[in-house]
Amino acid sequence: MSKIVNVVEEIMSSNDDLAAQNRTRLDTAHVLGMNIMASPGSGKTSVILQTIEALKDKLRLAVVEGDTAPVSIDADKVILAGMPAVQINTGGSCHLDAVMLRQALPEVPLDDIDLLIVENVGNLICPASFSLGTHFNVVIASVPEGDDKPYKYPKIYRGIDALILNKIDLLPYIDFDVDYFKRGVQILNPNVVFFDVSCKTGEGIAAWAAWLKQRVQAFQTPAN
Amino acid sequence: MSKIVNVVEEIMSSNDDLAAQNRTRLDTAHVLGMNIMASPGSGKTSVILQTIEALKDKLRLAVVEGDTAPVSIDADKVILAGMPAVQINTGGSCHLDAVMLRQALPEVPLDDIDLLIVENVGNLICPASFSLGTHFNVVIASVPEGDDKPYKYPKIYRGIDALILNKIDLLPYIDFDVDYFKRGVQILNPNVVFFDVSCKTGEGIAAWAAWLKQRVQAFQTPAN
Repeated sequence: MSKIVNVVEEIMSSNDDLAAQNRTRLDTAHVLGMNIMASPGSGKTSVILQTIEALKDKLRLAVVEGDTAPVSIDADKVILAGMPAVQINTGGSCHLDAVMLRQALPEVPLDDIDLLIVENVGNLICPASFSLGTHFNVVIASVPEGDDKPYKYPKIYRGIDALILNKIDLLPYIDFDVDYFKRGVQILNPNVVFFDVSCKTGEGIAAWAAWLKQRVQAFQTPAN
Repeated sequence: MSKIVNVVEEIMSSNDDLAAQNRTRLDTAHVLGMNIMASPGSGKTSVILQTIEALKDKLRLAVVEGDTAPVSIDADKVILAGMPAVQINTGGSCHLDAVMLRQALPEVPLDDIDLLIVENVGNLICPASFSLGTHFNVVIASVPEGDDKPYKYPKIYRGIDALILNKIDLLPYIDFDVDYFKRGVQILNPNVVFFDVSCKTGEGIAAWAAWLKQRVQAFQTPAN
């Protein structure tokens, strides 16, 4: 077993080194990097498309799409929305890692953007273990997934700055206790900022986009 | 890199050996084993509870619950429904494997049951790579996850015998093309049997339970 443990430690340590290199590259280009994690079908791509729509006249964005299969459904949607998108095919792997992002970065027009959105592979477990070098993490949860997810998949909620609760338009049709859900997240992460949104109706997107824009501006404003 | 590849090969080969041992154990006890895989929040536990309700007077069942965290929310629900349940805490791992099932089997009353339902960890990627030794696999998809999942997470649909499409009561409120979804599954797996169900209304559960009961009976009937 110790051979396996050593190999795992080598992989994680090498990932952290490469994540630090990715961070330096983003910092040098004054690009804020955001890693979006979520379960499959929570609406990651829909939130990204709404974010692009809300911010396209205010910020320059690009998107890196992580997919386990060589299909470009999500990347195509972003390109249709008028933003640069680079697809990473993980070849079946259940998460992005710093090596994959490093390989994608040369294809991202870093000098021409303010914000890089990385859409991780749809998975509530594995992505939590691999830093990419982005500046902060966001989880998108959705009402149909159920209000018990923070209790059952705790790790992913620990290192995030914001939580988007998507598909709130479905609350009338689904037994979902918003307070129970948020309490579960806050136990793990007291400082998380919540955004309740519906990509279908557009509700809550403006507040989320305003928060994101402010983060980019704070990042790009030199400290005295 | 070859050191890593060798270790991975050792793990997979060792998993397959243990899966074969688990299978022998189930066969000896005349217990049919079913592995249920799905995304978080697709309704695995709800389907299991409905299955118990539909079959409790016809079959003897037990459930093994895979969880990434030491919470017993799902196992408690099964026990409340009057069936034996054993919880496996994967300690953060993104899937069950044959070692974990082997450790759980001594706690399952194999001599007193006909069907063992294994609820894998909520994940559309990793569980597809690890045989457990159960006799067949089922995926539960749900309408709110979106109709593009077979195209984006193909591997998990390849080795399954049945696909349950859950939460069909939400079809009026969600843009989900059932034909597009099923076509995506059939391209990967032409022989899959579909069950459209709603755990909320009970629709479709009887057909699913009848199919399952028939499988158990065929398994337990000695061939001539």
